[in-house]
Amino acid sequence: MNIKAVKGTRDFYPEQMAFRNWLYGKVKEVSEKFGYQEYDGPEIEYLELYENKTGQEILEGTFTLKDKDNRSLVLRPELTPTFARMVAQKSQELPKQIRWFSFGRAWRYEQPQKGRAREFFQWEINLLGPENPEADAEILAIAVEYFKTLGLTPDEIVIRINDREFMQDQIKIIGISNEQTSPIFQAIDKKEKISPDEFKKLLSSKGLSNEQIEKLNNLLSEKDYSKSPWLTKMFESLKQYKEALDYVEFDPTIVRGIDYYTRTVFEAWDRKKKFNRAIFGGGRFDNLTSQVGGERIPGVGMAPGDIPTQTVLEEYGKMPVLTPNVPTVLMTVFNSSLYPKSLEITNRLRVENINVEIWLDLETKMEKQLKYADQKGIPFVLIIGPDEAKNNTVTIKNLKTREQKTIDIEKLPDEFKK
Amino acid sequence: MNIKAVKGTRDFYPEQMAFRNWLYGKVKEVSEKFGYQEYDGPEIEYLELYENKTGQEILEGTFTLKDKDNRSLVLRPELTPTFARMVAQKSQELPKQIRWFSFGRAWRYEQPQKGRAREFFQWEINLLGPENPEADAEILAIAVEYFKTLGLTPDEIVIRINDREFMQDQIKIIGISNEQTSPIFQAIDKKEKISPDEFKKLLSSKGLSNEQIEKLNNLLSEKDYSKSPWLTKMFESLKQYKEALDYVEFDPTIVRGIDYYTRTVFEAWDRKKKFNRAIFGGGRFDNLTSQVGGERIPGVGMAPGDIPTQTVLEEYGKMPVLTPNVPTVLMTVFNSSLYPKSLEITNRLRVENINVEIWLDLETKMEKQLKYADQKGIPFVLIIGPDEAKNNTVTIKNLKTREQKTIDIEKLPDEFKK
Repeated sequence: MNIKAVKGTRDFYPEQMAFRNWLYGKVKEVSEKFGYQEYDGPEIEYLELYENKTGQEILEGTFTLKDKDNRSLVLRPELTPTFARMVAQKSQELPKQIRWFSFGRAWRYEQPQKGRAREFFQWEINLLGPENPEADAEILAIAVEYFKTLGLTPDEIVIRINDREFMQDQIKIIGISNEQTSPIFQAIDKKEKISPDEFKKLLSSKGLSNEQIEKLNNLLSEKDYSKSPWLTKMFESLKQYKEALDYVEFDPTIVRGIDYYTRTVFEAWDRKKKFNRAIFGGGRFDNLTSQVGGERIPGVGMAPGDIPTQTVLEEYGKMPVLTPNVPTVLMTVFNSSLYPKSLEITNRLRVENINVEIWLDLETKMEKQLKYADQKGIPFVLIIGPDEAKNNTVTIKNLKTREQKTIDIEKLPDEFKK
Repeated sequence: MNIKAVKGTRDFYPEQMAFRNWLYGKVKEVSEKFGYQEYDGPEIEYLELYENKTGQEILEGTFTLKDKDNRSLVLRPELTPTFARMVAQKSQELPKQIRWFSFGRAWRYEQPQKGRAREFFQWEINLLGPENPEADAEILAIAVEYFKTLGLTPDEIVIRINDREFMQDQIKIIGISNEQTSPIFQAIDKKEKISPDEFKKLLSSKGLSNEQIEKLNNLLSEKDYSKSPWLTKMFESLKQYKEALDYVEFDPTIVRGIDYYTRTVFEAWDRKKKFNRAIFGGGRFDNLTSQVGGERIPGVGMAPGDIPTQTVLEEYGKMPVLTPNVPTVLMTVFNSSLYPKSLEITNRLRVENINVEIWLDLETKMEKQLKYADQKGIPFVLIIGPDEAKNNTVTIKNLKTREQKTIDIEKLPDEFKK
């Protein structure tokens, strides 16, 4: 019986792990450049943490289990509610502003497809405290810095921004009631995926007249954000971040499907839409900490996933060439009687902080050991045969230059310190 | 409603995250010193992966869920079976030896207590390929290196080692049948937790005569491993690792409760037993890759957990003093009209790879901003008031020395490059 991995999960062999670690390194670098500190939470939470906060679509596709008291637990489908719970729990003692980031696993029980798996990683980064457009500009500037760090240009990426409060005001002017707001937002969120005719039918089914539909379509193609003082200030602030304005634009069709967003919302897209949906989204969530039982602390944040990021890097030919970390040296073993000598030298090098792997089948032909080092990309091979052992020397082979020389054992560590 | 974390899980605030990252750094350093490469697997697996491999005790305490086809999934209770599955899947193409490590999350649904939680991290490190005592010695040397790196001495730590095959031979001599081996091993595994009388009764209930019990007790107090050629060679090899012999000792009472171990088994304990059970265990598992459907690749490994490690560090006063990473600079904001100037300088520093946090409530008193920087441990504060703005200068305050000076803005980056 060949036991398989669960559908929608991924095995990270050293090659894949190298990419994940590289991405984590970038995320950490960008986060810390802006003064954010790393945190993490549990990966299982009570279902209540997400109900009426995360979107319905997400909630319908979670991995759920029961505890022994029959309470529903879920594998976290996203990190923001956990973040809000943690802040709410310690809100008295935490100095505001709160700038935290995390890079963690999440699960959604949906159909695996290109750029989407059931188990994935998300970079969660949030700024809590300030309730102003300048804070939103910072999160957007971080998104821009992320793309710049990954080597993705403004020709390839656009971050589309909107203001939910502004949108609410605008659709009120069209005569759409408060009760209709949520269904109309949901329809707008679908616009990108359907044809103009289907969109018209959808709006019509939500009770809009032809005149209202026309006005709404006009609103959705608006390029001018000056009627939103919030966005005006935010764009003003963004000017201070180098190249930020090349990446961002106002787009009234962006409303996001997540319930806890209160004001600014945004989505990052690749311009040519090689990736068939948003790379990631974010926004302002001013009530989430109070919704999970704490005091109200306004905040803004975003959550880029590892798989969409990787897919876009691949689509635009920007994937870095990465290899897993290898030791500096493979110490070969000539035969079992010379093994103690090889091991002795191995450990002497390790004390000098040189990473050394030793061959541990004691009767393997030297040729096979060299081939192994080559295959793995280990730069140096050491050989201690009977002659070397007698003369207290070691033969060092550089696998890149194919040069080799025999040197005194005492001089060996210096070879790797250069 | 105040939504709580799930019982037995942990929130990693930046302070706790600093320890986890420190520990991960140590694990990575030690692993790579011996030439091991990082991998990771999914955190959910099919139940079959563990059945008849992991111990029954572990299997009874897993978090279980069902997929839509009603197959049982578990949150991984340990990492070794996932490792074996991944190796089995690619065994044709992987060059042996395989040296991999991981530092990942696992879950066990058991009563939380000191040094034990339901969600924890494990360092999994395995060497696959060589089927010899020298490979076992390497894993034990890594365990020793781990303790040395953590600052735990041979006066505080002992690694107790046994050979399951040797034990099977020895209890056969006492007249214990093959069928009795497994229940007798389970009884031996419990010995440490019960009184000598209770142990005697337990053995008696498994069908041993008084004479057999006496002989078994003699065997279990044996200090001489020379009857096991395997252990003899392993200890011989360990001599080559500096100080290793100070940490390890032969102990026939160590048999381990996990079903997949085939030969060498070991447990690390603190000598004073301040921690009431093994810190971690490990051993040789020669059949696990074939049990999960691949070719047979013999291996050896271990899996230290984060919580037992932390508990022992605390008990022996060896916890490092750690603080979360903070930015080098807090840029204050004098008022909203000077915010653009502060932001401009902030971004200029970031371009120079200096980590800067900017205060983003635009009307906060300077005193409060300075207090925030102090509280968070940020070393430098920058102030741009009306005078500074006019003269193109900035005031820099060193919060450790309490010194401050006003300098030309152009000279600012150099202040942090020293």
